[in-house]
Amino acid sequence: MPITFEVLEKDIAGRTGRLKAGDKTVKTPLLLPVINPHLQPVLPGEMKAMGAEGIITNAYIFSRSGEYREEVMARGLHDLLGFDGLIMTDSGSFQLSVYGDVEITNLETLEFQKTIGSDIHVPLDIPTPPDADRQRASAELAVTMARLQEAKEVFGPDAPLAGPVQGGIYEDLRELAGRETGDLGFSFCPIGAVVPLMESYRYTDLVRVVMAAKNGLPPSACVHLFGAGHPAMFALAVAMGCDVFDSAAYALYAKDRRYLTPQGSYRIDELAELPCACRVCRKYSAQEIRESDDAVRLLSLHNLAVSLAEISHIRQAATEGTLWELVDDRCRSHPQLLRGYRELLKYNERLAGEDRVSKRRFFYRGEESSFRTEIITYQDRLCRLPLSGRVLIAMDGNPREGYDTILFFKPPFGPYPPALRETFPIGQSEIPDWDSAMVRTGCRGILRLTTEHPLCHFTVYAPREWYEIVCRELPGTGVHCDDI
Amino acid sequence: MPITFEVLEKDIAGRTGRLKAGDKTVKTPLLLPVINPHLQPVLPGEMKAMGAEGIITNAYIFSRSGEYREEVMARGLHDLLGFDGLIMTDSGSFQLSVYGDVEITNLETLEFQKTIGSDIHVPLDIPTPPDADRQRASAELAVTMARLQEAKEVFGPDAPLAGPVQGGIYEDLRELAGRETGDLGFSFCPIGAVVPLMESYRYTDLVRVVMAAKNGLPPSACVHLFGAGHPAMFALAVAMGCDVFDSAAYALYAKDRRYLTPQGSYRIDELAELPCACRVCRKYSAQEIRESDDAVRLLSLHNLAVSLAEISHIRQAATEGTLWELVDDRCRSHPQLLRGYRELLKYNERLAGEDRVSKRRFFYRGEESSFRTEIITYQDRLCRLPLSGRVLIAMDGNPREGYDTILFFKPPFGPYPPALRETFPIGQSEIPDWDSAMVRTGCRGILRLTTEHPLCHFTVYAPREWYEIVCRELPGTGVHCDDI
Repeated sequence: MPITFEVLEKDIAGRTGRLKAGDKTVKTPLLLPVINPHLQPVLPGEMKAMGAEGIITNAYIFSRSGEYREEVMARGLHDLLGFDGLIMTDSGSFQLSVYGDVEITNLETLEFQKTIGSDIHVPLDIPTPPDADRQRASAELAVTMARLQEAKEVFGPDAPLAGPVQGGIYEDLRELAGRETGDLGFSFCPIGAVVPLMESYRYTDLVRVVMAAKNGLPPSACVHLFGAGHPAMFALAVAMGCDVFDSAAYALYAKDRRYLTPQGSYRIDELAELPCACRVCRKYSAQEIRESDDAVRLLSLHNLAVSLAEISHIRQAATEGTLWELVDDRCRSHPQLLRGYRELLKYNERLAGEDRVSKRRFFYRGEESSFRTEIITYQDRLCRLPLSGRVLIAMDGNPREGYDTILFFKPPFGPYPPALRETFPIGQSEIPDWDSAMVRTGCRGILRLTTEHPLCHFTVYAPREWYEIVCRELPGTGVHCDDI
Repeated sequence: MPITFEVLEKDIAGRTGRLKAGDKTVKTPLLLPVINPHLQPVLPGEMKAMGAEGIITNAYIFSRSGEYREEVMARGLHDLLGFDGLIMTDSGSFQLSVYGDVEITNLETLEFQKTIGSDIHVPLDIPTPPDADRQRASAELAVTMARLQEAKEVFGPDAPLAGPVQGGIYEDLRELAGRETGDLGFSFCPIGAVVPLMESYRYTDLVRVVMAAKNGLPPSACVHLFGAGHPAMFALAVAMGCDVFDSAAYALYAKDRRYLTPQGSYRIDELAELPCACRVCRKYSAQEIRESDDAVRLLSLHNLAVSLAEISHIRQAATEGTLWELVDDRCRSHPQLLRGYRELLKYNERLAGEDRVSKRRFFYRGEESSFRTEIITYQDRLCRLPLSGRVLIAMDGNPREGYDTILFFKPPFGPYPPALRETFPIGQSEIPDWDSAMVRTGCRGILRLTTEHPLCHFTVYAPREWYEIVCRELPGTGVHCDDI
């Protein structure tokens, strides 16, 4: 049975959806906690009880394990791990990225993954590190693509195969890889080798790489951001159109005595208090966890609870259309994430083309909100407004006599006719007192309108305190102010 | 035994501390969940197990209750409620604010609170609503002050009495009330009658009222923001110097089938997913809670867990000196809270005088971060830098020959000598790519330096892309740019 993916709701380039692989159906965005058979601080069954619908484990570890190899081949993964949800397996590519070599071929790992009953099999792709030069990235991508093709040929078009997208930090290669992976018929596409970017906080590069890969991939593909990771960046990744994550972080951080939050991490030794509502943090104090023999398990339980909660949070936001607000919230927690967010906002025109039309609300959260897709979409629609003759734009809210059309003004959107007062986004947006970023963005709406209607005569009345900024933003337009 | 309060750590005007009342010692910031004896979706003992060190209940309800009056007088509050932590009691003022009248006098309610063994007694103050005119606010404040004085006279200076601060929305009255309450010897001071402001999202007014009351109160007083409330505003209130909150919200919202988050609230009927890590939200789905006969209890447990977690979060932030970042995070969740936050930033000079000197870090989170107290403090210190002769401010990072002193530049702080490169805040601050808000604020640092040293000759080298803004910010200063 092939892997299928159905998009339910869209928000920015993100979506909620339904992923089917084998006989399993799961909701996206989805987090797959990583299971290491040799070290299980939280059992797969416990994860399911906390809301995890799928897990991921490493087929290569099983295939090389004297302890587990025969048993998993006989009993199957689901039985061995005690988990009846979706189980995805990695191929050994991770070990390739760490050790430079693995003792398994592409077809061997796929055959093994099939034998043990994995729901999603990953070919042995080559994870190109960010410091690889273009020649290496290109050569390694060619190997990856050949293996994807081989996988499709040997296992057939309906095998539950993932098609990883590589290409290093080269945007054109990532885009090409995305396009070719889609052309080969893959419907589940992990974007690979991004872990080093995240580990070194290179979120600007992460945004460029993911946006490039997404530009090549078909919109219908389910996209897995392989190796991600920390809950602080899930929202940003979903906004770009990533649907699936996997987290070894919950356990790796716990092993290092580190404590995850959706805003960053702490060492447990530096925490005076536990800033979390989970059952571990409401039952124990920071000091009790520090001194507990069970610290790794307690931290793993906490880390997993906040990671799963973050996925729920993102699903809720994407369902109601408030994902920009969640992205804004999470990305301000670290200046490098803020850079990544600001980088993503540079793609706002492209993202506006994918975003949905109506949302629960638009809450202005600071200057960055002036670059949201909803404003692009609104101002595009505004240009199609039929106008003629003398047009008054009453930024100050005062209608005046002697005009053919009177428009009001709401920053950061711009001018609006009274008929749009109750519709999205004018009617469902809430802003604090005007600030210069939103006024400038609103003026761009005026500018687009005046450009679109060269035969109309526009008059703008600005409130006193915004008069100078409005004049600067609207050169050549008649801007007035009652007090001047 | 009098109520005593010890400040441990400071951050902005907030603090962590230790509050002693009766034989109970609790940590602040502190949340007192409200117990209504007639309706207890979560038992006081369960609250304690979740981390609540204190609770608050209404003595007036007990005093008027046919069911409980005699029993509580005989057994005492702690035994009756099964709670051995701190118990504060309200006097009936809340009923006064709702019904306009109560059938108890100031001395009667205090005597009753003493009899039932309350750890903190509240006199019968008059809660003046925000729409009261000045004359009414002033007259009611006089009654409140007379009752506070009466309480002190009758029960003695060592009685565990709270001294509520009233005054409506009149800042001078609030400040006066704060001063007089302090002068009467009260060390535990609730700021009263702010609930209507919060219910109508008037956070700008809330900030003005609290900052005025705090201006009058002695810094050593433990300040309770009476009736607050929603976890989204705890951080803002702590930043102003509030130490204690009480929450009926956990139960009232639950009764209305509403779901609290530190970023706002939802109706449970509109939630597709539960965006939370608490044990209720990891065990049940939104739909299961919706359909449960136990919905009110489950929602109460969730609401309480997130409220207590938010207090832990704030304590952790204040301990490490990252409270501004938490305030920034929480206040962006609603445009009216953002207004309140921006209002608070207008007090940054006063707040800088109360803030501590060194912190864990300074993360830049957007334009608003350019107004943080740490920048005020840094630029004040900068002015005391001994300088003479020719001074180069190398904004572009390139030292040049021919100057007596070379300073580098880090926005939003401003110029710094190499010797300060590793110290707070220069060394512990992280910023995304420069933006105009931070560059302008950094230029104010240059301006202060040039004003302070009129005999020095300053040369500024700006990076190309910031040249124009720097020239505009530093009129009359020699600004250069290598490329121009």
